[in-house]
Amino acid sequence: MPRAVYPGTFDPITLGHLDILKNAVVLFDEVVVAVMHNPSKQPLFKLEERIEMVRQATQEWTNVSVDSFSGLLVDYYLDKGFQAVVRGIRNASDLQVEMQMAHMNEALNPQHHTVFFPTTPKYSFVSSSLVKDVAMHGGDISQFVTPQVNEAVRNRLGENPFQVKR
Amino acid sequence: MPRAVYPGTFDPITLGHLDILKNAVVLFDEVVVAVMHNPSKQPLFKLEERIEMVRQATQEWTNVSVDSFSGLLVDYYLDKGFQAVVRGIRNASDLQVEMQMAHMNEALNPQHHTVFFPTTPKYSFVSSSLVKDVAMHGGDISQFVTPQVNEAVRNRLGENPFQVKR
Amino acid sequence: MPRAVYPGTFDPITLGHLDILKNAVVLFDEVVVAVMHNPSKQPLFKLEERIEMVRQATQEWTNVSVDSFSGLLVDYYLDKGFQAVVRGIRNASDLQVEMQMAHMNEALNPQHHTVFFPTTPKYSFVSSSLVKDVAMHGGDISQFVTPQVNEAVRNRLGENPFQVKR
Amino acid sequence: MPRAVYPGTFDPITLGHLDILKNAVVLFDEVVVAVMHNPSKQPLFKLEERIEMVRQATQEWTNVSVDSFSGLLVDYYLDKGFQAVVRGIRNASDLQVEMQMAHMNEALNPQHHTVFFPTTPKYSFVSSSLVKDVAMHGGDISQFVTPQVNEAVRNRLGENPFQVKR
Amino acid sequence: MPRAVYPGTFDPITLGHLDILKNAVVLFDEVVVAVMHNPSKQPLFKLEERIEMVRQATQEWTNVSVDSFSGLLVDYYLDKGFQAVVRGIRNASDLQVEMQMAHMNEALNPQHHTVFFPTTPKYSFVSSSLVKDVAMHGGDISQFVTPQVNEAVRNRLGENPFQVKR
Amino acid sequence: MPRAVYPGTFDPITLGHLDILKNAVVLFDEVVVAVMHNPSKQPLFKLEERIEMVRQATQEWTNVSVDSFSGLLVDYYLDKGFQAVVRGIRNASDLQVEMQMAHMNEALNPQHHTVFFPTTPKYSFVSSSLVKDVAMHGGDISQFVTPQVNEAVRNRLGENPFQVKR
Repeated sequence: MPRAVYPGTFDPITLGHLDILKNAVVLFDEVVVAVMHNPSKQPLFKLEERIEMVRQATQEWTNVSVDSFSGLLVDYYLDKGFQAVVRGIRNASDLQVEMQMAHMNEALNPQHHTVFFPTTPKYSFVSSSLVKDVAMHGGDISQFVTPQVNEAVRNRLGENPFQVKR
Repeated sequence: MPRAVYPGTFDPITLGHLDILKNAVVLFDEVVVAVMHNPSKQPLFKLEERIEMVRQATQEWTNVSVDSFSGLLVDYYLDKGFQAVVRGIRNASDLQVEMQMAHMNEALNPQHHTVFFPTTPKYSFVSSSLVKDVAMHGGDISQFVTPQVNEAVRNRLGENPFQVKR
Repeated sequence: MPRAVYPGTFDPITLGHLDILKNAVVLFDEVVVAVMHNPSKQPLFKLEERIEMVRQATQEWTNVSVDSFSGLLVDYYLDKGFQAVVRGIRNASDLQVEMQMAHMNEALNPQHHTVFFPTTPKYSFVSSSLVKDVAMHGGDISQFVTPQVNEAVRNRLGENPFQVKR
Repeated sequence: MPRAVYPGTFDPITLGHLDILKNAVVLFDEVVVAVMHNPSKQPLFKLEERIEMVRQATQEWTNVSVDSFSGLLVDYYLDKGFQAVVRGIRNASDLQVEMQMAHMNEALNPQHHTVFFPTTPKYSFVSSSLVKDVAMHGGDISQFVTPQVNEAVRNRLGENPFQVKR
Repeated sequence: MPRAVYPGTFDPITLGHLDILKNAVVLFDEVVVAVMHNPSKQPLFKLEERIEMVRQATQEWTNVSVDSFSGLLVDYYLDKGFQAVVRGIRNASDLQVEMQMAHMNEALNPQHHTVFFPTTPKYSFVSSSLVKDVAMHGGDISQFVTPQVNEAVRNRLGENPFQVKR
Repeated sequence: MPRAVYPGTFDPITLGHLDILKNAVVLFDEVVVAVMHNPSKQPLFKLEERIEMVRQATQEWTNVSVDSFSGLLVDYYLDKGFQAVVRGIRNASDLQVEMQMAHMNEALNPQHHTVFFPTTPKYSFVSSSLVKDVAMHGGDISQFVTPQVNEAVRNRLGENPFQVKR
C-alpha cells in the first residue's frame, strides 16, 4: 500500500505545510513527515524541537507519523521503502526548484516518484522563513501557524534585538 | 482505496502521457484515463478513436481503465467518487494553467484534490498538438507515440494537403 | 487630482475585478471602468449589457463611473485626460502580457502610466472566461460574481447545449 | 563556414527582428531569413510581400539573404545545410515556446542547433501582431518598423473598419 | 489625499528607482522614499549616506520626501498613515517575490495596498547590487546612477582589491 | 572569423557544460572556456584545478581552449577580441538571470553579443552546485560528470563530514 514521505526543514511547520498534508493523507495509506537534519544550516529550532512541533500539529491524523533524516533524500527514500515524495508548489519559482530536485532524484533512483500538490490560494504567500521574519520584527503570525508553534516562536524570539517594541 | 482520474483530450495519447501514467499506477489503486468529449472543439480523432488508442496503449497496466466524460470535471469526479485528479507538468507555463484549474475545481468542490506529476525531461517538449503538427508536415513522430498511434495518425493525415512529399 | 481608468472587456465583471477596484478607489480621486468595444470579438454579453453589469456592481462607490471605448487605449486615455491605467495581476503569465501592453502604451505616449494591482489570493484563479466556461457546463459561479451577474449569466446560457442536466 | 537560418512569419518584419539580425550577422558567415509559408494561417501580407519587405529591410547587410519555406523547419534546415537556427527571446513566455520547438527539432534531427539571442530592452515589447494591432486602430508604428514597412502597413489597412478617425 | 511610501534598501539609489518615482509622483499627492534600516545586512553605504543620496537625487520633486524605517513595513505604514506602497517590477522573478510580500502585508493589515509599477525597458536590467558589482570590478556605472551617486560609489570602492587597473 | 567565450565558474565542469560546448564548437571557429577567478567566493576546487578539469574534458575538440579571467566579463571580452559570449539556458529562472547579465554587458559595451544555447532535456536539471551537493552526501554523480571529474570530486570530499557512510 502506497506510503509517502513529505520532506522538509519545517523550521517551523506552518499552516501551509498542514494544508499540503491535509490533501496527502487522503491519497496515501501513510504519510511520513521527514524533518531534515542539515548540519551546515542554522535553523531557529533544533531538530528535536522541529520534530515535536510537527508531532503536535499532525496528531489528529492517524496515518501521519514524524521522522527525521540527513543525507540524500533518495537514500532515505530507498531505506524506508517509500513510493512517493510529496512537495507543495506555490508558484512558478517553487516549480523550477522542485522540478530540478525531482529530476535529479529520479536520475539517482528511477523508482523515485515525486508528486506536487498545489498550495491553496489562502496560503500561497506563506513560508517558514517569511513567517520567522515577520515574527522577528514583532508581527503577529497567528494566522499562519498553530497556537503551539506561535507560542514556541514567540518564546524563542523573546529577547531578539530586532523585535520592535510598540 | 484511492482512485485517481487522469483527464485530458488525448488527441492522440503520447508517450509523455504514458510516462505520467507510469508514475500514477504506482501511487493509486486504480487510475481512470478520462477522455474529454468537448463538442465545441474539432479534434483530429473522434472520441471513440481516442478512447480506443488509450485502451491499446495502457493495456499492460491492470489497474488502468478508460472512460470518457463531458461537462465539468468536478461533476464527473463527484459522480465517480474519485480521490484525486492527476495532471502532468512540463514547465512554468503548464503550471500557471493547471494551478488555475486546480484552484477553480477546489473552489467548486473542497474534496477535489489535484496532484501534479513532473514530466520526465525526455518528454518535456512533447504535446499532442505539436506531435500532430509535426506529422501533418510529414515528420516522423515514432519517438513520441506508440506504434499503433503512429499508424493511426499516418492514416488519418494520409491525404492531408500540408504533408510534404519528399 | 489623479483620475484612473480600469479598462477591460468585463464579459462579465467578476469579484476579482471588484477586488482590484476596491483598492483603486482608495488611491485615486476617480476611477472610470472602461468597457472595451471590440467588433472583432464575440462576447457573451453585448456592450450595453456589460456596461450595465459594471454599473450595478460598482454603484456603492461614489468615485467610480462606467464608460466604454473602442480603438487604442492610449487614444482614449489622452482624450479623457487620465493619469493612470489600472490592471490586475494574478501571476507571472498575466505579468508578461501586461508588461508588453504597458511598455507599448508608454512608447506610444510617454505620459501613459500603468499601475498593476496584485490580485488577492482568494481570486487568483478567477477570470471572466473561466467563469463563463464553468457556467456553460452547469457549474455554480455564485462565489465568483455578484448575484445580478450570476442571474444574467444563467439567463443567457439557459438553453445552452453544453449545459449538464443533473 | 557556419550558415544560419532565421525563420519566422515576418508579417511584417519589425525593428525587433532587425535587432536580432544585427547580432546574427556578426556571428555567422551567412544568415538566411526564411519567411514561412503556412497555408492554414491568414497573414496580413502575402508571402511575396513579406519576402520583399525583408529584402528591403536587410539590404545593407551583404551576408544576409532572403528565402521562403513551408513544411517542417528541420527538413528545410537539412535540405539547405544550415548549421544553426536563430531565434530572438524577449521574456520567459517566449522561452517556454522556443525551448519546446528547439528540443523537438533536436529530437527530429540531432544536428539541429538552435541559438537564442536576447532581444534588446528597447524592443522587448515589440511583436508583429501587436504592431499590426496598433496600426489597425490608427496608432503610429513608425518607432517599431522601417519606413517602407510603415507605409505598406498603412496602405494595407487604409480602408480597415477598425481604424479610428481622429 | 493619497500618500504613498516607496520602501527599499537604496544601497545606492539608481536611475531605475528614479524612473519608478517619476511615475509615482504623478499619481500620489506625496511620496515618501523610506530607506530601510536592517541591522542584519551589511550595506555598502550607511543609513545616513543612503538617505542623503536619495535626498539629492529626488530634490527636483516637491512632493517627494525621504525617511527611514526599521522593523515591519506594515507597522511603519500604519504609524505614518500611508494609503499605498509603491514597488517596481522588472520581470517575472521580481513579481514572485513582490506578490509574496504584498499578500503577506495585506494579511497582516487589510488596509495595506501595494501597487506595482512596471520598470521601463531601458532600466529593466538595473539593480543596486548589479551596479555595485560592476563598479567593484572597475566598470563605468554612470549610465545607471546620478553623478553624485557615481562619485560616492567610486570613493567608497577606491581601494577595493577587486578593482581592475586598466 | 568568429571567436566565442564560454565563461563560468566550472566548479566543476559537468556534462551539461560539455553539451553546450558540443553545440558551440560547430558554430564558432574557436571557443575559449574562460574559468572565472572570483576572490570573494569559496569554490570547492582552486582555479588551477578547475582549469585542468576543463582542459581534460575538452581535449577532443581542436577548436576549444581554456583560459581564466577575473574582473568584468566585458573587459576580458574586449581585451581578447571575442565576438560572442556563450551561455546555456535550462529554464525560465536561468533566463531571467542571464537576460539581466546580457543586457548589462550590452549596455557597458555595445559590441558585446550574448547567445543562449538551450540545454538538452537530459541535462536540464544538472548544475555544478547540485552535483557537488549530491556528492557531498555520498551520492553517485557519474551520470553528470566525466570520469576524471568524478574522481576529483570523490578525492576532494573524501574526508567531508557530511558524507554518508553506507
